[in-house]
Amino acid sequence: MLTYEDFTSGRSFPLGPRTITAEEIIDFAEKYDPQPFHLEPESDQAKTVGGLIASGWHTCAITMRMMCDAYLLDSASQGSGGLDEVRWHRPVRPGDTLTGEAVVLDRRISSKRPTLGLVTFQYSLQNQNGDTVITIKGMGMLDVSNPASQEV
Amino acid sequence: MLTYEDFTSGRSFPLGPRTITAEEIIDFAEKYDPQPFHLEPESDQAKTVGGLIASGWHTCAITMRMMCDAYLLDSASQGSGGLDEVRWHRPVRPGDTLTGEAVVLDRRISSKRPTLGLVTFQYSLQNQNGDTVITIKGMGMLDVSNPASQEV
Repeated sequence: MLTYEDFTSGRSFPLGPRTITAEEIIDFAEKYDPQPFHLEPESDQAKTVGGLIASGWHTCAITMRMMCDAYLLDSASQGSGGLDEVRWHRPVRPGDTLTGEAVVLDRRISSKRPTLGLVTFQYSLQNQNGDTVITIKGMGMLDVSNPASQEV
Repeated sequence: MLTYEDFTSGRSFPLGPRTITAEEIIDFAEKYDPQPFHLEPESDQAKTVGGLIASGWHTCAITMRMMCDAYLLDSASQGSGGLDEVRWHRPVRPGDTLTGEAVVLDRRISSKRPTLGLVTFQYSLQNQNGDTVITIKGMGMLDVSNPASQEV
């Protein structure tokens, strides 16, 4: 079980690979983002962007699943308070295979709760051509395994 | 069809209402964020947070769907380059009814593409008790209907 202590500054965790299908792009779009370029491959809107592209929120959700599989489900995670600097650099298309990494940028113990650690991560995913498709700066909360040994 | 010209600073668009079910919380969690407090109502992790809570990414996706239904599907949207300041203020739980608004904070014409407008929105959702559950600052791109009349 990974705790705050394991998330040292500069440590990185590999994310993916995951290959994205048209079916899942459309399934997500139907529920959450039914703009034609995410939903209808033959629409004029899709054609102007070179074909079906995934909702940016879908790419975010895929990044989250990769984090879960890479380290979060084996950690003492207490959730997250938020994100900053979500950037969709390039579209994600059916057949794209995404890989990436989560890098620890910074961390500190909560001033209000000395048993809780706050870790800032930079997440990034690339497609099979090496093009970055998304970057996210996110904040995670993790239990501290040995609060007495930490500076507050 | 709403274009850049319609998104004047200060204009607001109501979002929702939408009532969230346990079924959709679990469905999203299975695909994208299978942490126990989002997936298993009887887990120890869910019990420590007062029961099942929605993934923060799910709340983001729900906000996106509300934007689509409120104005985006009737607009000349060209997508978005990113987000800033996503904050999950309180958990979203099964049975919560969410409403909110999208407010235009600022806007400008792209310096590179005078036919494209860049609009910054502040999105916020509250639950049925009036508690804010999420706030997001996001950037939208919209076609300009009459580029010649705009300052670049």
